[in-house]
Amino acid sequence: MGLPVVGMVGGGQLSRMTHQAAISLGLSLHVLADATHDSAALVASQVSIGEHTSLEDLQAFAAQCQVVTFDHEHVPNPLVEALEDAGHDVFPGSVALRHAQDKLVMRERLTGLGVPVPPFVPVATVADVEGFAHHVGWPLVLKAATGGYDGKGVWVVADAAEAEDVVRSGVRLLAEQKVPLVRELAAVVARSPYGQAAAWPVVETVQSDGICVEVVAPAPDLPEELALQAQDLAIRLADALGVVGVLAVELFETADGLLVNELAMRPHNSAHWTIEGARTSQFEQHLRAVLDYPLGATTQTAPWVVMANLLGGDGDPDLDRRMHLLFGRDPAVRVHLYGKEVRPGRKIGHVTALGDDLDDVRRRAREGAHYLRTGEWLS
Amino acid sequence: MGLPVVGMVGGGQLSRMTHQAAISLGLSLHVLADATHDSAALVASQVSIGEHTSLEDLQAFAAQCQVVTFDHEHVPNPLVEALEDAGHDVFPGSVALRHAQDKLVMRERLTGLGVPVPPFVPVATVADVEGFAHHVGWPLVLKAATGGYDGKGVWVVADAAEAEDVVRSGVRLLAEQKVPLVRELAAVVARSPYGQAAAWPVVETVQSDGICVEVVAPAPDLPEELALQAQDLAIRLADALGVVGVLAVELFETADGLLVNELAMRPHNSAHWTIEGARTSQFEQHLRAVLDYPLGATTQTAPWVVMANLLGGDGDPDLDRRMHLLFGRDPAVRVHLYGKEVRPGRKIGHVTALGDDLDDVRRRAREGAHYLRTGEWLS
Repeated sequence: MGLPVVGMVGGGQLSRMTHQAAISLGLSLHVLADATHDSAALVASQVSIGEHTSLEDLQAFAAQCQVVTFDHEHVPNPLVEALEDAGHDVFPGSVALRHAQDKLVMRERLTGLGVPVPPFVPVATVADVEGFAHHVGWPLVLKAATGGYDGKGVWVVADAAEAEDVVRSGVRLLAEQKVPLVRELAAVVARSPYGQAAAWPVVETVQSDGICVEVVAPAPDLPEELALQAQDLAIRLADALGVVGVLAVELFETADGLLVNELAMRPHNSAHWTIEGARTSQFEQHLRAVLDYPLGATTQTAPWVVMANLLGGDGDPDLDRRMHLLFGRDPAVRVHLYGKEVRPGRKIGHVTALGDDLDDVRRRAREGAHYLRTGEWLS
Repeated sequence: MGLPVVGMVGGGQLSRMTHQAAISLGLSLHVLADATHDSAALVASQVSIGEHTSLEDLQAFAAQCQVVTFDHEHVPNPLVEALEDAGHDVFPGSVALRHAQDKLVMRERLTGLGVPVPPFVPVATVADVEGFAHHVGWPLVLKAATGGYDGKGVWVVADAAEAEDVVRSGVRLLAEQKVPLVRELAAVVARSPYGQAAAWPVVETVQSDGICVEVVAPAPDLPEELALQAQDLAIRLADALGVVGVLAVELFETADGLLVNELAMRPHNSAHWTIEGARTSQFEQHLRAVLDYPLGATTQTAPWVVMANLLGGDGDPDLDRRMHLLFGRDPAVRVHLYGKEVRPGRKIGHVTALGDDLDDVRRRAREGAHYLRTGEWLS
């Protein structure tokens, strides 16, 4: 039918769920995976095994695709550039992607754009950290400029001695004020090469040990003015940075307003709820964006949608049995399993509930994820 | 994670969409396809190429699966029986499946159960047909007892001369009264081996040249009593015939009540709307049923859901360009393409619209399917 071939670098759950969305569009996602047991490689028909840090592997992969996109930020920027130089359509492109790969580059650029971020400085020595602490106080946050995710590469340090342990590791760091939060939010949008942008409702994200555990759509009791401000900010950023695809802007809500915490330029955990909870899911939207199709409607399909991440617990969970019992208890809860080997704390799936009553919807999502993880009911 | 392997015989769009649903459940559908370019074979990772009429191919396939199910009714019943005798879990089983494979067996059984069907007789000669015509008049309907689908194997004959052409072909036939219809309906349910059953709302189906072109959920202006009667009838049939999986009961609504027209024991065109339009899609429900999981909620996600089939038009439709333009016009319409080569009249996809206003929803679904087919707007 002459439909384009979209390739995604990375074989994780984002790639898996993007393949699932691609099927409706008449496509079959091509996946560059590390191994045949990767989450997406288990379900996609067109899988290449290769290294996302190998230019040769990336080039061979790109040669099979009309458009190349990513399920993570770990492809070194010069390799993305090399693919572009060779004439491949790569979305997001290297220039945009740098801001999702390097927190220092991102914060400096956002500051330049007048977008509020937590007070920060690059630090190389303990003296640098101590100097910054004079302004913002202890404890403060040290972050690896590159390579962190799910709480990795982030350290809350109480004093110079704790800072020294981190500095000694030799990674490129920034120091950041530990901002007093009301809560965390996420504004997720998509942008196409044509320049069209679409925003989903702003959500509240709940983190535990640096990992997202729950997302509530829309963010409860968020004043409309702040919600519009967050959506506007995300769309302006997508435009200013030239993002193509999904852009997730993680935000701190503080007493003084919104601060940008992190950017991700790919489908993002904070928008998994859109699979059932929005007219167009983030996975289909990402595909539409990288194909330069007009973007889909982002309206919610129910007043409240709550997604709870399913993290691996201890031991073999016998998910088959637990699915039986969960489905028996809640016939309307939506379960998504990623086909990943269970390891404690690893994201192995998510559970979504939808409905008219927030408390009930939240209880059901939490109950589902908790039961699948532990084999015990919360209530 | 120890999840079961489900195998589906047949690589068509039903298998393709079942694979899509399987991904959420942590599964990857194993597909027995005729060819690598089959609709499901294009998107699934576990594909065997083989003949659904070869016991050897079926046995080799079943050996890789915990449960075997079907995307069509064309596996000869003795082969299904042979798989069962070899100890495989096959759903629906051979005893149930016979009623979806042989219209004469089905109508005789339903008559025995007291379920209303159109007046019919088996016929072997033109004299048989003429004898039946004395009771029901001309025109009447001749149907091949086995092997028909999408209007194939069904002939409306005006007189003995026309009947003779059909009888001469030598296929096993039944003659049926051409019942005066109000409209056609479908009651779709699922049943698990445990015996749980769940019914979606009864829908109106619109046929053209024997092919389903449109489905409206729920059937407009259907008195609640008739809707409940249709659902009850479908559940009773699933139970009486021992169906496991989805059972679609195609019904004639007449001035005197409901008559059963056809049965299908697999995901069915009349329930494609459930992908977005019901809390649990027929594809996930079929998987839950054959895995003996508790069944999912069947409530609608919007007051009105309309699905329009996308049939192949003349020539190469340049679907990529048409998708662009359709998405630009209607950002909320849902498109499903099956990856099939376009041939005139062939089902190559479907379009679903949802909303509060039936006229608007129907207009959008029709517009989408018509535009993708013809490249011209209806309005």
